[in-house]
Amino acid sequence: MKDLKSKRVAILATDGFEESELSMPRQALQNAGATVDIISDKSGRIKSWTNGNWGKEYPVDQTLDQAIHSSYNALMLPGGVMNPDTLRRNGKAVSFVKSFFENHKPVGAICHAPWLLAEADVLKNRKVTSFNSIKRDIENAGANWVDEEVVVDEGLVTSRHPADLNAFCNKLIEEVYEGKHEEQMA
Amino acid sequence: MKDLKSKRVAILATDGFEESELSMPRQALQNAGATVDIISDKSGRIKSWTNGNWGKEYPVDQTLDQAIHSSYNALMLPGGVMNPDTLRRNGKAVSFVKSFFENHKPVGAICHAPWLLAEADVLKNRKVTSFNSIKRDIENAGANWVDEEVVVDEGLVTSRHPADLNAFCNKLIEEVYEGKHEEQMA
Repeated sequence: MKDLKSKRVAILATDGFEESELSMPRQALQNAGATVDIISDKSGRIKSWTNGNWGKEYPVDQTLDQAIHSSYNALMLPGGVMNPDTLRRNGKAVSFVKSFFENHKPVGAICHAPWLLAEADVLKNRKVTSFNSIKRDIENAGANWVDEEVVVDEGLVTSRHPADLNAFCNKLIEEVYEGKHEEQMA
Repeated sequence: MKDLKSKRVAILATDGFEESELSMPRQALQNAGATVDIISDKSGRIKSWTNGNWGKEYPVDQTLDQAIHSSYNALMLPGGVMNPDTLRRNGKAVSFVKSFFENHKPVGAICHAPWLLAEADVLKNRKVTSFNSIKRDIENAGANWVDEEVVVDEGLVTSRHPADLNAFCNKLIEEVYEGKHEEQMA
């Protein structure tokens, strides 16, 4: 088991995130010893999406106005259709995402979350996967899209949907443990 | 007032369509004399999305298995985040959309619906608008994206969000009345 005790990981999400895609990676990272903060475009609580409807609310640890990217060793982006569709309209959210690439830090993105990577324009020539509905958007953003349960490309970890979560969490922990990847860039 | 009595218009939608973006254009087209069918990836009823939650259900007139594109003079695509995200995964839905372009017929698309146009690969060098969250996806698909309440480009009518519906409906009726546009193509 990799020990992530010295690592702090940011999860960026807002209303409509797919619940398991936030809760499972958070638990896995915490089990490995990492400190994990939920960062959002608003304070208070954010609403999950589960089984085709609004689900449980999760407390926000830091707003995008408060959060400083340099405090974090890595970023994890859960999916859900509405969550990234809202965050990509927020310039602070897009800059926050981009800063992890600029600083060569590991990033995990699952399901519809790669829309945020398209918005941050960090997908050129990167090998990734995503939920299959957005395959064309991701390819049009310059990525090499493949249909695999988890894809690791120089610190960037992507998966397709909740059924891939075990593989996603394992690779995410590995990349966070390894730390900066020079080829991870904006 | 344009008379659309001889016109039949297809509305393609599934669960999660933004209610006003289906109901208002349908009413406007019907008021102008057109026959309007709701076509979906399933039979029975489809659930609207309104005020941030599931709303009223609408009966489906034809499934994609039953509908023949040549029966229709024009196509209208409502938005909502989930509706086009689901339809773009359906090959029959994407072919149905594309057939209107191949046959130079008018198409209206509002809000998130232009994702379906990106999926059908019919946006190269077309002037369009959309909900602003998907601007980058639409540009990456080859379109010239502009921020206007309604954009008309050779039979293709696009708008940004429900507040644009009056302008969208007026232009849609005009284009359906005019009929085929040679420059509208796949």
